Amino acid sequence: MVNVAILGFGVVGSGVAEVLATNGSHIDKKVDDLIRLKYILDVRDFPDSPFADQVIHDFSIIENDPEVNIVVETIGGAKVALDFTHRALMAGKSVVTSNKELVAEHGCELLKLAQEKGVSYLFEASVGGGIPIIRPLNQCLAANEIEEICGILNGTTNYILTRMIRAGLSFEAALKEAQQNGYAEQDPTADIEGHDACRKICILASLAFGRHVYPRQVPTEGITGVTLADVAYADACGKKIKLLGRAIHREDGKVCAYVAPHLVDGEDPLAGVEDVFNAIAVKGNAIGDVMFYGRGAGKLPTASAVVADVIDAARHKDEKKRMFWSEGGDDVAVPPTDLESVWYVRVEGRLEEVKAAFPEAALLPRAGAPENEFAFLTPKAMTRSALDASLSRLSPCSVFRVLD
Amino acid sequence: MVNVAILGFGVVGSGVAEVLATNGSHIDKKVDDLIRLKYILDVRDFPDSPFADQVIHDFSIIENDPEVNIVVETIGGAKVALDFTHRALMAGKSVVTSNKELVAEHGCELLKLAQEKGVSYLFEASVGGGIPIIRPLNQCLAANEIEEICGILNGTTNYILTRMIRAGLSFEAALKEAQQNGYAEQDPTADIEGHDACRKICILASLAFGRHVYPRQVPTEGITGVTLADVAYADACGKKIKLLGRAIHREDGKVCAYVAPHLVDGEDPLAGVEDVFNAIAVKGNAIGDVMFYGRGAGKLPTASAVVADVIDAARHKDEKKRMFWSEGGDDVAVPPTDLESVWYVRVEGRLEEVKAAFPEAALLPRAGAPENEFAFLTPKAMTRSALDASLSRLSPCSVFRVLD
Repeated sequence: MVNVAILGFGVVGSGVAEVLATNGSHIDKKVDDLIRLKYILDVRDFPDSPFADQVIHDFSIIENDPEVNIVVETIGGAKVALDFTHRALMAGKSVVTSNKELVAEHGCELLKLAQEKGVSYLFEASVGGGIPIIRPLNQCLAANEIEEICGILNGTTNYILTRMIRAGLSFEAALKEAQQNGYAEQDPTADIEGHDACRKICILASLAFGRHVYPRQVPTEGITGVTLADVAYADACGKKIKLLGRAIHREDGKVCAYVAPHLVDGEDPLAGVEDVFNAIAVKGNAIGDVMFYGRGAGKLPTASAVVADVIDAARHKDEKKRMFWSEGGDDVAVPPTDLESVWYVRVEGRLEEVKAAFPEAALLPRAGAPENEFAFLTPKAMTRSALDASLSRLSPCSVFRVLD
Repeated sequence: MVNVAILGFGVVGSGVAEVLATNGSHIDKKVDDLIRLKYILDVRDFPDSPFADQVIHDFSIIENDPEVNIVVETIGGAKVALDFTHRALMAGKSVVTSNKELVAEHGCELLKLAQEKGVSYLFEASVGGGIPIIRPLNQCLAANEIEEICGILNGTTNYILTRMIRAGLSFEAALKEAQQNGYAEQDPTADIEGHDACRKICILASLAFGRHVYPRQVPTEGITGVTLADVAYADACGKKIKLLGRAIHREDGKVCAYVAPHLVDGEDPLAGVEDVFNAIAVKGNAIGDVMFYGRGAGKLPTASAVVADVIDAARHKDEKKRMFWSEGGDDVAVPPTDLESVWYVRVEGRLEEVKAAFPEAALLPRAGAPENEFAFLTPKAMTRSALDASLSRLSPCSVFRVLD
C-alpha cells in the first residue's frame, strides 16, 4: 500500500484526485501495489466533494503519519509550499509537484535534500503541463550533450498570439477572450509578462546543463509589446510571432537563457503550435532535433503528469532518483548580449532615415500601414547592441529576434 | 565499472561506440560509474577502426564473461539476434536493442525472460530512432488509459512522400533520390511496403495496451500505390498524404491496428512532419493529445537512444525494469473492418456513374487531369465494406482513409 497526501485542492490538486480515482485499477497495475489517497490538505472544506472525508487542515498530521509515502504539492508559490515541501522531505516522504515557481527558485536545494533523505523530488508537471519533458530530458536524452532548448512554454500567451494571428484580434481583445475561456487568470501578469515561461526555461536549463539557473538571471520580455501590425509584417515574410524561452549552451560552458517574442519561420515545427498547446524543441549533439508537443496546461493533462510522477515514486520507494543539478552562481547564466540574430524591426520615421541606417534591408509590406511606418528584417545577424547603434537615429516601435 | 558488448558493428553499432566515446565523461557522470566498451562482435574485422582491439568473432566469449553487464544488440533480424539475445539474458546480462523486427515478433517472451533473470530488456531505439517514445509511453503517460496511437513511423516513406508533394517527383524518382541520399536501402521493400512501420506500431500497441500485437495481425499497405495525381487532389482539399501506423483501443478492449496511407488535414501537426522526420501522436484519457517529433533514423540519433537505454540499464543494475506486456492471441488485435472513416477516392469512369454512386460528393479539381478521372472525399464516414459496395460499379484507382 502506497499512501498519498495532496496539498492544495485547487485545479491541479483536484485533478490528481480525479485521475487517481478514474484510472485507479490501471495505475495499481502499473505500480504493482495499491495507491491510496489518504489526505487532502486545504484551508477550505469540500462537503460536496466525493473526497470530503480525506480533507484535513493541519499539515502536521501528514508530516507525522509514517504511512504517508508520497506528498503531492499543488499549492503553488514559494512560501507555504516551500515550508511544507521541506518538512515532507525531512520526514522521509517523496514529494511530487507541479509548482514551477518553487522548482525554479529552490529546485537545487530541494533535490539535494531529497537525495540526502533517500526519497524523490519529482516535477514533471512543472513544465509543459502534461507533456513528458523532464523525464525524457533526464533519461532518454542522457547520452547527449544538450546544445539548446527552445520552447513555447506558456499556453496563455500562445493562445493570445494565435488569436491575434488567425482572427485579427488586438492583444487586449485576445487577452479578454482568453480570460473568458478560462485560459488566462484575472491577473494575467505572470503569463503575459513572460514570468511563467521564464520559470520553465530555468527548470529545463538547470536540468539540461547541470547547474541552477535562477529566474533573476534570465532577461524576460512578454508579449504586451506585440501588435497586429507586427503580426501582419511577420506574415508578409512567412513567419509567425511566438513567445519563446531559450537556453543555449555556449562553447565557454555558460548558459545563455532568455524569454522574448520571436519571429519563427512558417516551416519551423514551432510555428504550427497553436492555441494553448506548448512545444519544446531540444537539440542534442547525437540526436539532433527532437520536439515534444501537447497541452501545456489544464486540469487533467497536468494532473496526469503529476500522477505519472506518483507512480514513479511509488515504484522506486527504496531508491533515490538520480535527478539533480548543482548550485547556481553568477558564472552560470548570461544574458543574450553576445547572441547574434537577424532582427525584425518596426520603426516610425522617414524613409530616407531607414535607408540610411539599413541600406540593404528590404521593406516588408502591410496593407493600410501609416506612411511613416516601416518594417524590415536586418540583412544579417547581429548583436542587440550593434542593432541599437544602427537604430540610434530611428524610433523603433518593435524589435524582435528572428529564430534561426 | 559497467562493461558493454556490442553485437553487430554496422551503422547503429558503430554509432553506439562513437557516442560512448564522444560523450563518455558526460555519460559516466550520469551513471555515477564508468562505462567501458569491452567487446564488439562482428563477423568482419575492422583493422582501421579506433575500436579494432575490441572486435571479436565468438559470441560465447561475451556470454561467458561475467564482467559483461550489458549487451547491445544491433544485428537486426529475428534469427541470430534472437539466439544471442536469448543467451545473453539467460546469462544474466541486460540487453539493449534497436531491432524492431525482433521486438515486434518476440518482445513478449524476451521481456518475460529478462524479468525472470532480474535484468532489463530495453528497446527505446526500436521505434522513432532517437525520439523518446518507449519510455515516455511506459512512464510519463502511465497515469493515462491510452486511447489511440497514430504516427509517421518510417522516415524513408515520409521522405519519398515529401519529395512527391514538394518537388512534384514521381514515386519512382523520389525513391531513387532517397536511395542516392542513403535514406532508402537498395532493396526498399520493408520501407515502401509498410513492413517497417507495421513492426513499430506493433511495439507501441503492445506496450500501450498490454498484450502482444503481432505484425501478422496488422493489415499493412505501403505507399507504392500513391501517385502524383493523388498528391494533387489531396492538396486541392488542403490535405497531405502520409503513411500512418495506427492503433486504436476499442471500447470492447480489442486493439484495432493497421498501416496505410492517409490524407491528413494541413492543420494537423502530423501534416507538418516532413522529410525523414517521424512523429508519434498519442491520445490519453487524461492528457489529451501529445506528440513526439524528431529524426526517426540515422546513425547518431538511433545510437543516442541505444546509449540512453545503456545508461538506464547501468543505473538499475540490481533492479528489474517494469516494462512488460502479456502474450498476444487471436482475440487481441482486429483489422479496421469496423472503423468508419471519410475516404478519399480516385476513380476512372464516367461522370454519371460517379454522380449516381455518390450524389453528394464534391469533385476535387486537378489541372491536366484526364477527362475520365474523378476524385472526391466521401460525404460521410463509412466502413470499407460500405464504401466498396458504393464503388462496385466504378473502377477505383486510389482509396485512402482521411484522418479524423
